[in-house]
Amino acid sequence: MKRIAESTVRRLSVYMRYLEELTARGIATTSSDELAEHSGTTPAQVRKDLSFFGSFGKRGLGYSVHELLDRIRRILGLGREWKVVIIGAGKIGSALSTYRGFTTRGFCVVGVYDKDPQKIGRRWDGHLVRDVTVFESDAAELRPDIAVLAIPAENVQSEVDRIVRAGIKAILNFAPGRLQVPAGVTLKTVNMAMELEGLSFALTNRDA
Amino acid sequence: MKRIAESTVRRLSVYMRYLEELTARGIATTSSDELAEHSGTTPAQVRKDLSFFGSFGKRGLGYSVHELLDRIRRILGLGREWKVVIIGAGKIGSALSTYRGFTTRGFCVVGVYDKDPQKIGRRWDGHLVRDVTVFESDAAELRPDIAVLAIPAENVQSEVDRIVRAGIKAILNFAPGRLQVPAGVTLKTVNMAMELEGLSFALTNRDA
Repeated sequence: MKRIAESTVRRLSVYMRYLEELTARGIATTSSDELAEHSGTTPAQVRKDLSFFGSFGKRGLGYSVHELLDRIRRILGLGREWKVVIIGAGKIGSALSTYRGFTTRGFCVVGVYDKDPQKIGRRWDGHLVRDVTVFESDAAELRPDIAVLAIPAENVQSEVDRIVRAGIKAILNFAPGRLQVPAGVTLKTVNMAMELEGLSFALTNRDA
Repeated sequence: MKRIAESTVRRLSVYMRYLEELTARGIATTSSDELAEHSGTTPAQVRKDLSFFGSFGKRGLGYSVHELLDRIRRILGLGREWKVVIIGAGKIGSALSTYRGFTTRGFCVVGVYDKDPQKIGRRWDGHLVRDVTVFESDAAELRPDIAVLAIPAENVQSEVDRIVRAGIKAILNFAPGRLQVPAGVTLKTVNMAMELEGLSFALTNRDA
């Protein structure tokens, strides 16, 4: 398969949500026009995105909602369970551990870790916060797929290294700063300041 | 100015952070190769991104770090103060209200609101959580630029409508679901499940 841009993957997630809405409404077919309109993109972009994954739909007949939804879910690796560990039991980690949107997608939080004795032993919605020093031995047993890193800015790289050593191949990071991961490990960073910069850009260039 | 894709704006934020790092290290010039390497993109993409905003750099001499940084900051609308209100004093709202990365970029939290009597009146790092019913009158006085919406999934559209009526033109939303804003208002949604889907995609298609 060709290398797929992150922006394409993100649009697939958006198309999927609209297809789920159509399914709930009992609608069986859709078009690239309709998908585009509900996803903030163009019909040409929809067709291009879907073409990466082989041929979908029939000219003039549109796409089968069921077939396309099933295909996108498989492309996104959904329809199975992914074991997620959260490192950092602060506010963001806590918000994520109880986020209802995860379990419905098959993302199952199997462990929450912190180094702060004040936090270790606390219970969050059924998750016991564990000492991060037991992370490696837990990981050897649990074999988590994804680690969420939600710690303050200090020593983030050493935590990333710890996650990589534990054999985890995907990291969602909320800490700022540039981080290194070896080839074969995917690191995605959510940077809240960058999200706001997208808005200050829009506000600044609105009338330009 | 041509319409700039969200992905371009995001890369500008990444270039800016690297240019700041170079400034801190006292380095005066850089190249599209170097910018690309540190931003996870290609030199051609860097040149294309920067070309949207007029000509930068001299062939063979590279870019002046100072000049490029200054220009990108202005493009992103930084270098001024943006007033931010947070609606929803739950875990995510709380994490954001105390996020240090905001103030350094000029994003200043001027108000935090909730409808829950248990939360109203609480103090977070200097911010008093106020009753959301006073939001409109506060907004008329404070004139916030950006609203962060961090509430549970119910009634999100009505809160969006409230923000829009208050004259705010930019919204960063953490709630799931499709939302409508009028033309002239920018809505950005951060969806944590979609971030994880980017990782399940990577894990699934790694060896394909």
